[in-house]
Amino acid sequence: MRVIYNEQMADLADMLGEMAGLAGTAMEQATQALLQADIVLAEQVISESDRIAEMISQAEEKAFALLALQAPVAGDLRQVVSAIQIVADVNRMGVLALHVAKVARRRHPNHALPEAVNGYFAEMGRIAVNMGAAAKEVLESRDPERAAQLNEDDEAMDDLHRHLFSLLMDREWKHGVAAAVDVTLLGRYYERFADHAVEIGRRVVFLVTGVLPPDPDAQD
Amino acid sequence: MRVIYNEQMADLADMLGEMAGLAGTAMEQATQALLQADIVLAEQVISESDRIAEMISQAEEKAFALLALQAPVAGDLRQVVSAIQIVADVNRMGVLALHVAKVARRRHPNHALPEAVNGYFAEMGRIAVNMGAAAKEVLESRDPERAAQLNEDDEAMDDLHRHLFSLLMDREWKHGVAAAVDVTLLGRYYERFADHAVEIGRRVVFLVTGVLPPDPDAQD
Repeated sequence: MRVIYNEQMADLADMLGEMAGLAGTAMEQATQALLQADIVLAEQVISESDRIAEMISQAEEKAFALLALQAPVAGDLRQVVSAIQIVADVNRMGVLALHVAKVARRRHPNHALPEAVNGYFAEMGRIAVNMGAAAKEVLESRDPERAAQLNEDDEAMDDLHRHLFSLLMDREWKHGVAAAVDVTLLGRYYERFADHAVEIGRRVVFLVTGVLPPDPDAQD
Repeated sequence: MRVIYNEQMADLADMLGEMAGLAGTAMEQATQALLQADIVLAEQVISESDRIAEMISQAEEKAFALLALQAPVAGDLRQVVSAIQIVADVNRMGVLALHVAKVARRRHPNHALPEAVNGYFAEMGRIAVNMGAAAKEVLESRDPERAAQLNEDDEAMDDLHRHLFSLLMDREWKHGVAAAVDVTLLGRYYERFADHAVEIGRRVVFLVTGVLPPDPDAQD
């Protein structure tokens, strides 16, 4: 039993890492599509999202089968349950990348973003992609220190997000209401993407140490 | 074992229902606070949110203890795992109500909403509160038909949300960018609140029937 459990759990962990990697790639391409008004790239993210969704349900089924057939206990049990929670976060990361791609497609051939905020989104995209890669790395290495560090990456994201909002709220905003609405939603998508990566970090800390770190997002 | 399991599972199910009820109440009060610029009510939602967060971690611990000590199998196992997933949705519903209350507080003594959209938010609030109550009911009754019906409530929410957006995107919008940003975020909070109620319905269908309905949100 134990050998089978270990193999299947390793498979599941690989799947989670791979999906986090795919979500990161999707966010990278969606950000490019947004910044360059690149419809081909936007369409690619949108059609790829089906593949992530398919993997999500496979991973969930795998986790359930593991629970049902191997009846893990103690630390093993914690791993499987954490995996089920992590699947939900990876799923949302993929959906948020999809949202970004859809905004790019909706505004094509125009740019969705006024040039003045391109720099913000290039940077939020960079941080999001790094956090997706870090989540993948943490899922593979189970390094609780690297996992906890995702909080710091998230602070950089929150800072940018706050700056973006003061720009929007400024009387000097010259780009009209429609652009402000897009920028508001897009900002939220990147911020939430980062929150889910942080959440994956918390779950990995929990599965390694047995203690769930406080939820930094609870008061957002 | 079986008797203990049944008792503890019933306790956990009660907690989930109670928390969904609290999230619904929080959204009701937050909506009132928003529409009336009622700072006392906004503060009440904000301080109550700690209590929901406390219950969330208790429910999660309870579910883990159940898994670890009672080692449920088959349908029982499915119940506990579903409970863990539902905790995450109820948690987000509470956080989204908190977000609404915080917008009301941030804009006090002004109204956050231009009068022209009050009707939309009164209606989105009404639907959200109903969906919170329906989620509570479904968690208690485990009625898969009522659970599936949450999708229809969600369609009403999505319709309102789309209308709200066409209003925002209209050149006739006269309420400035800052109000548009608030309205955009608030609309998203209500829409997401409803999505999580739908998700709870899907989980209940799964735990009763063993089949997870397709995710209506995956393509949003």
